[in-house]
Amino acid sequence: MTAKFEPLKPGATIGILGGGQLGRMLALAAARLGLKCHVFSPSPDSPAFDVVHRVSVHDYTDTDALDRFAADVDVVTYEFENVPAETATFLSARRPVLPDPHVLAITQDRLREKTFVAGLGIGTARFAPVDTADALPAALEATGRPAVLKTRRFGYDGKGQTTLRDGTDPQAAWLEVGGQPSILEAFVPFEREISVVAARSRDGQIECFDVTENQHRDHILKVSKVPAAISDTVGAEARRIAATLAEAFDYVGVLAVEMFVVPDGAGHTVLVNEIAPRVHNSGHWTLDGASISQFEQHIRAVAGWPLGKPVRHGRIEMLNLIGDEAADYGKWLTVPGAGVHLYGKAGMRPGRKMGHVTLVTPEE
Amino acid sequence: MTAKFEPLKPGATIGILGGGQLGRMLALAAARLGLKCHVFSPSPDSPAFDVVHRVSVHDYTDTDALDRFAADVDVVTYEFENVPAETATFLSARRPVLPDPHVLAITQDRLREKTFVAGLGIGTARFAPVDTADALPAALEATGRPAVLKTRRFGYDGKGQTTLRDGTDPQAAWLEVGGQPSILEAFVPFEREISVVAARSRDGQIECFDVTENQHRDHILKVSKVPAAISDTVGAEARRIAATLAEAFDYVGVLAVEMFVVPDGAGHTVLVNEIAPRVHNSGHWTLDGASISQFEQHIRAVAGWPLGKPVRHGRIEMLNLIGDEAADYGKWLTVPGAGVHLYGKAGMRPGRKMGHVTLVTPEE
Repeated sequence: MTAKFEPLKPGATIGILGGGQLGRMLALAAARLGLKCHVFSPSPDSPAFDVVHRVSVHDYTDTDALDRFAADVDVVTYEFENVPAETATFLSARRPVLPDPHVLAITQDRLREKTFVAGLGIGTARFAPVDTADALPAALEATGRPAVLKTRRFGYDGKGQTTLRDGTDPQAAWLEVGGQPSILEAFVPFEREISVVAARSRDGQIECFDVTENQHRDHILKVSKVPAAISDTVGAEARRIAATLAEAFDYVGVLAVEMFVVPDGAGHTVLVNEIAPRVHNSGHWTLDGASISQFEQHIRAVAGWPLGKPVRHGRIEMLNLIGDEAADYGKWLTVPGAGVHLYGKAGMRPGRKMGHVTLVTPEE
Repeated sequence: MTAKFEPLKPGATIGILGGGQLGRMLALAAARLGLKCHVFSPSPDSPAFDVVHRVSVHDYTDTDALDRFAADVDVVTYEFENVPAETATFLSARRPVLPDPHVLAITQDRLREKTFVAGLGIGTARFAPVDTADALPAALEATGRPAVLKTRRFGYDGKGQTTLRDGTDPQAAWLEVGGQPSILEAFVPFEREISVVAARSRDGQIECFDVTENQHRDHILKVSKVPAAISDTVGAEARRIAATLAEAFDYVGVLAVEMFVVPDGAGHTVLVNEIAPRVHNSGHWTLDGASISQFEQHIRAVAGWPLGKPVRHGRIEMLNLIGDEAADYGKWLTVPGAGVHLYGKAGMRPGRKMGHVTLVTPEE
């Protein structure tokens, strides 16, 4: 698919599936480059709607609406990984869809994703499929305890998963995840969590942002720091893994690879935790902290344009504003060097990502 | 007016008069902060329309349309200084208009502006009013030759002005500017042109961006460089002038002051050339080259929010892409550290500002 079309011209329209804050920030990046966006989202109060040329408010299964959407855009991309595979396939018969829908098919299924990663010789936690309750004891043999049982599909921010510790009843865990086809993963005694946000262009250029160190709270990203407190060796290995995955997917756009750094004798091992086939929260710091943002890299890639070479502006700390923390925006506006971002969401629900703040400290 | 209303809340709507690239970049800055924009412009293909919540395509004299616009927004600002005074006055009876319309009344008239500046004890070129052809010889006595005859109103990018050198027939010059009420200004033997982009908040906080050095070509800004090659004394004087003007106007928002640096014995004198009561082309570098942009400062000011303290990311060179220079965007995309901006304009006319490029070189 990637070879079939010419780079977009300024004034062309990028179709974005999904209208959350990631779609909003993608649209803002496209606007800088003279490109228009058309956002397709079933949710009438999508934050991305406020900043784009055209919107479609329809279900992802509405083929008439998808047909009209395809006719209005030059290329299609998405801001979240749970776009129905049928939607992506339907659209890819009409317009280029980037990254290619086969990537979605893999990353929407934790078992396929882990199998894909392991098949490339890249380390992961020990894992085993759990299709039925009966399969759980054998899977526990393979992983040991503690282990995390996760539904294969549609999990995010800690939803659809539960931990099996010593004494946890497997049957109760199985009910906890709703009796869905699942994957059991060994608990990883990690020292820190890192991620690499990488971009790959249509002609295979790859640019990685600096490795980011992440801290979660209640399974939701709370803080990202750059540079990560890791050795050069670990940093190089993390970037190599991200680049290997991007190549293996024949990926076009930005992807994020979440990894664990695990102590291993004198050194460290890097294990892949999760792949996000899209721009990612742990790359938000690039908006204020680098010469080019993850959002612009993604837009450039799907437009068929060359990627930029990111230069970091200093030491970075990115804080998510979750739920009513966003009410503190006034405080952040007065902090020197703080970049304040609010996503234009109407409701301030607990656990909802409402905005973020980037603190940039110039390096001496 | 400025004391009468509360700071905007996220989700509020800013009304922008004018839909060019400045309105577009203001809207993008508002979006970062969770604020919506409604752009009012008579021109159906306004670049700002692509990135906002709502648009009004009507003449500035359409009071019904202005009424509806006012009803939809929480505050009104503008992206260009030639908004009809009647429009601003009409709106200010309905919503806060920032900066206050009295600033427009002064800056729309070169004679009033120069008189205002001189009245503050700030240096300008020698000038004299020219209301009729008959007044021109006496005015020339006051200024000497060469001198520049400029219409008092509606001039920009060199339009509506002509130079009287030795031998230029005053009558021909008068016809050249269309026989409009004009001002004659002595030619200034400047060493360099600089500008200060300053922001003032509703409660009087003032933040100046670093002094910018500007080069024009055919009366259109071509290159801005930061820092300007000036002494600390000249830099401090330039910022003092900008701050003095902002105070004197009781200004709210971003204004730009264009100045000449003139050799004066062992030192230099700073003379004000022109005031732009809006974000300004010579401040575009702040999008990529500073921790906060002129556009965000303006939005914060009109929203009643605190200003940021700008930190520059390095040495900057900003190049305007004028007319068919924008066709070279592909070249700029591959230059490391270059921020590329295209304004989404349909027609690539000669002399039209189509985009800009910012080159940031980290300082050692």
